Amino acid sequence: MDPDLSTRILSAVDTLFEREIDFLCELTAHPSTRGNEQSAQAFMADEMVARGLAVDHWQISLDEIRDQPGFSPVLTPYEDAWNVVGSHRSRSRKGRSLILNGHVDVVPAGPEEMWSTPPFAPRVEDGWLYGRGAGDMKAGLASNLFALDALRALGLQPAADVFVQSVVEEECTGNGALACLVRGYRADAALIPEPFEESLVTAQLGVIWCQVHLRGLPTHVAYAGSGANAIEAAFPLIEALHGLEARWNAPACRHPDFAHAHHPVNLNIGRITGGDWPSSVPAWCVFDLRIAVYPGQDLATARAEIEAVIRDAARANPFLRDALPELVYHGFMAEGYALSDDGSAKARAAIDTIDRAHLGATGEALPRRAITATTDARFFGLYADTPAIVYGPRAEAIHGFDERVELESLRRVTRSTALFIADWCGVEPI
Amino acid sequence: MDPDLSTRILSAVDTLFEREIDFLCELTAHPSTRGNEQSAQAFMADEMVARGLAVDHWQISLDEIRDQPGFSPVLTPYEDAWNVVGSHRSRSRKGRSLILNGHVDVVPAGPEEMWSTPPFAPRVEDGWLYGRGAGDMKAGLASNLFALDALRALGLQPAADVFVQSVVEEECTGNGALACLVRGYRADAALIPEPFEESLVTAQLGVIWCQVHLRGLPTHVAYAGSGANAIEAAFPLIEALHGLEARWNAPACRHPDFAHAHHPVNLNIGRITGGDWPSSVPAWCVFDLRIAVYPGQDLATARAEIEAVIRDAARANPFLRDALPELVYHGFMAEGYALSDDGSAKARAAIDTIDRAHLGATGEALPRRAITATTDARFFGLYADTPAIVYGPRAEAIHGFDERVELESLRRVTRSTALFIADWCGVEPI
Repeated sequence: MDPDLSTRILSAVDTLFEREIDFLCELTAHPSTRGNEQSAQAFMADEMVARGLAVDHWQISLDEIRDQPGFSPVLTPYEDAWNVVGSHRSRSRKGRSLILNGHVDVVPAGPEEMWSTPPFAPRVEDGWLYGRGAGDMKAGLASNLFALDALRALGLQPAADVFVQSVVEEECTGNGALACLVRGYRADAALIPEPFEESLVTAQLGVIWCQVHLRGLPTHVAYAGSGANAIEAAFPLIEALHGLEARWNAPACRHPDFAHAHHPVNLNIGRITGGDWPSSVPAWCVFDLRIAVYPGQDLATARAEIEAVIRDAARANPFLRDALPELVYHGFMAEGYALSDDGSAKARAAIDTIDRAHLGATGEALPRRAITATTDARFFGLYADTPAIVYGPRAEAIHGFDERVELESLRRVTRSTALFIADWCGVEPI
Repeated sequence: MDPDLSTRILSAVDTLFEREIDFLCELTAHPSTRGNEQSAQAFMADEMVARGLAVDHWQISLDEIRDQPGFSPVLTPYEDAWNVVGSHRSRSRKGRSLILNGHVDVVPAGPEEMWSTPPFAPRVEDGWLYGRGAGDMKAGLASNLFALDALRALGLQPAADVFVQSVVEEECTGNGALACLVRGYRADAALIPEPFEESLVTAQLGVIWCQVHLRGLPTHVAYAGSGANAIEAAFPLIEALHGLEARWNAPACRHPDFAHAHHPVNLNIGRITGGDWPSSVPAWCVFDLRIAVYPGQDLATARAEIEAVIRDAARANPFLRDALPELVYHGFMAEGYALSDDGSAKARAAIDTIDRAHLGATGEALPRRAITATTDARFFGLYADTPAIVYGPRAEAIHGFDERVELESLRRVTRSTALFIADWCGVEPI
């Protein structure tokens, strides 16, 4: 790229950065937990319209996606699940097209009293912006839009089609990104600014969610010996699942990108509920588990292993033996994905482009990183033959209390993104 | 008692027994779980009025009971807690006065699909009446009223004051029975037909309820190692509590009435909730425990032991060490009670009277039994110097699915109760 253009783009990002922070504050103030994203999506749609993008704001239809590869099962209807995509159509179409993807859903804030200040009242302090979703990943949504704004401030626009996606369901299924694919949005590459500290994500794990339903035999606790406590029956099952976790972390099981990772596969018992009354032996217990799988690990096989572990542990329990736990899959059924396994010319070109962009924006080489989480990148990489570049700002305490994103990091990522767009798509006058 | 009178009383109970079953069906149909007893209490009040009793139907006032011995702490207001007492005033007052006590609150039914038929649609099958609360203890409430009815059918009434109590909160605090004491209801003995298989309860355990609140350190599960799972942190605490349970069951700890009991002290983890999201390391977990104590075991000491066990177990956890669990007492803080420890003449007389009544009604000697649960008897015995006779019908699956009471057993208990009233109070013409 012309060094002068590059300089002007970086300067334009800097000029707009105060507005980008304001935008991020406003977006973070929407408490867009799953099912409650509508106001945030309306805000996103308005912002896209104001930028001259053609906005497609639609309700996800389960019927349209349930038979597609990558679909994750859901037990609830999707009346409250809306996607927003803003399309820029190039006149010249001389460059390569691009998807700028981000998710607007955030995970629950947890007990609010454990936050220093309320999770949906964003604030800036010492160079960090605090709030649930500030890092994961509303900063990325801001970066995508303000990178385009920087070009426009110079009288330029991408010389290829660009689709700015604000999707839901990233945190539980990925069905929002899947719905974009099914709706026909395709491009030569995708950029997803998830908050992984300005590194290029070479590989991500897959994730399985599973709900385990246990029955017990309730009695008055005075006769506890004749009952079967469904809550305590869960503990050995969870212990057995940790055994599976240990086996999957063994060196022989690992995808090469995770060979040196510290404990890549994490089992999480994220939620539990059981029993109705302190003095009744509990008749039921339900716990939610999340476990990761490697790129290339077959989901059906992984599921069968989980089921066998739970079944075998349950058989050691005299009551459960005859009332085996019921497993319900509700949420992530997500394969792993490795950009590093994509040897295509398109993938190499996209990686080269983000390398150049990061170097141009920061003066440093772009580090690589395999992540122990999943992102929507898998849909582009696995099911649409589209290299997905996951590259975003530094954040801390994502999914935790006092989640925050570093503003200087966000500025650098916005700079890189603007350079990436100009390089990948080329530019044309507005 | 005149053998002829005895025969006529038994016959009157039998004559009325179909109506007693209908009454029990109707009462059991009221889903009087804690907080929802109002319709059942209105029904009880109407039935008492129809029998000519002077009905006192009042809302329990926390302010009036909170400083009384035997009070159990509650965290919720008592707007929905109403007691009903029907008073019979004797003209002659030549006999001994009596309280006929029963509780109208029932424990939650649990998952309804695990019942053969709905828990609040009572049905009779093969000599058993099924329904939540049928045994524990609406059958007892029926027996109390129909024993009086049998006398009235003969043109007789007790020759002493009798107070028929229908109380709430037996299943969680006992504050309903306590409120009756505070309101001034006293008598020479109390009879409580709790469903313990037509035996005389010589001793009952006390019960402590405690809610344990755990904190965790939430993170994205991708970094689970840096977080602290509040759900799994509960497991070693529960294991340590089972250690305490084992120590309290050791022979040296036992009250003599429980010397030969199989595992009298039961710990129950009756309820658990924790976490908000499968892919977030859970920041919180709360579990409810119930544990029993012996008659004479000091509650403050027992509480301190529980707290020490939890604290010591928590200190073994690197996160909990600096965020010790919070214990909340909400519900039972109930001492044990042993009628067998009451050497008073009044107690001996009451025991002799129920022995005679049971023999007269069934032709068999009344068996003794120490129970591993608590009942409202403690209020009469410990705080009002009133011997409390716990004697009721055979029931199965109390607090479980398909709870049921044996109708022939209920008939026998109603017969014994009618004889007991006639013997203890004497009779006078209506």
